[in-house]
Amino acid sequence: MPATESPRRGRRPGDSGARDAILGAARARFSTAGFRDATVRAIAGDAGVDPALVMHYFGSKQGLFVAAMEFPLDPSQVVPRLLAPGVDGLGERLVGFLLQVIDELGEANPMLGLVRSAVGHPDAARMMREFLGEAILDRIAAAVQADRPRLRAELCASQIVGVIMARQILALPELAAADRATLVAAYGPTIQRYLTGSLAP
Amino acid sequence: MPATESPRRGRRPGDSGARDAILGAARARFSTAGFRDATVRAIAGDAGVDPALVMHYFGSKQGLFVAAMEFPLDPSQVVPRLLAPGVDGLGERLVGFLLQVIDELGEANPMLGLVRSAVGHPDAARMMREFLGEAILDRIAAAVQADRPRLRAELCASQIVGVIMARQILALPELAAADRATLVAAYGPTIQRYLTGSLAP
Repeated sequence: MPATESPRRGRRPGDSGARDAILGAARARFSTAGFRDATVRAIAGDAGVDPALVMHYFGSKQGLFVAAMEFPLDPSQVVPRLLAPGVDGLGERLVGFLLQVIDELGEANPMLGLVRSAVGHPDAARMMREFLGEAILDRIAAAVQADRPRLRAELCASQIVGVIMARQILALPELAAADRATLVAAYGPTIQRYLTGSLAP
Repeated sequence: MPATESPRRGRRPGDSGARDAILGAARARFSTAGFRDATVRAIAGDAGVDPALVMHYFGSKQGLFVAAMEFPLDPSQVVPRLLAPGVDGLGERLVGFLLQVIDELGEANPMLGLVRSAVGHPDAARMMREFLGEAILDRIAAAVQADRPRLRAELCASQIVGVIMARQILALPELAAADRATLVAAYGPTIQRYLTGSLAP
């Protein structure tokens, strides 16, 4: 329920206006303050609404970020589901899922726009680093039983960002043409080793 | 010697003008036509000089590209040197060399500007893909003794581009703080497997 005490039937016109105002305020504040320092309270203030209404619409700061940036999926839903069966086979599951999402989104992949922003603008890079850190990397690190769990999660991220860059943006021809099974067989063991293997020099 | 038959002592003022004209013409033509379709003859024509003068100054189209884009190093020199001892230990050699170059260049790394261009502009992405393909990936593929050598070279590229993205541009904190030995131990076996390991599903 919206944070209003007046009785209502159906959706009021004001609701979508408030929702849009919150999303606009979120985009502005995330991109200037970063993900970590942008508070729900400040975003609500910018939008002229009560913080409870933000939580009502979006559930959490991560959910608000996902909606504001038009992420194709919500890591707070997806990552726990991928982690649930345990770390055995997690490398192949992560890579297979990522490739499936990329293939389904095709040219309309909004992640490509986010990579472009992060590469061009330090503020956007910080915002992505902080969001990816909380929404994905900290969750993966918490599931890893080995030494240096957060470094391991970041090693995985470096290979996954590299797949997106090399296959979707640079469009290296054999990577672009390879079928998903070939790529899962190539990248799965890399991710698995970063998660559970020895990293000793 | 420049492509001139007049006797000369020292450097003539005209030399640096012609050299700069060639570099300007090369930048313009590489970025519109791509690396593959931009011919030395066409660039020389744009600059109003003889193609032989271009070869005199820069040795090859790859050398011209390296000079025009202000690459910190010339892959036609560096890659054969890294490949010379053979594929044993090549993964660690490649990663160690890359990290050393990144550390030495620091903030002034012109590769970061090239990654930014490639991410933002399809023409720049094509130019990079074609240059990296001929100057680096084809050379690595030619040294690989296993099946699908070019795919293997592209897998390596995807991890190396990912290291640059994650460590230098996103600045993921544990990757950014890790010492070189830790990163060589993490990434060396990945690159080595892409070059010489089994990729079978």
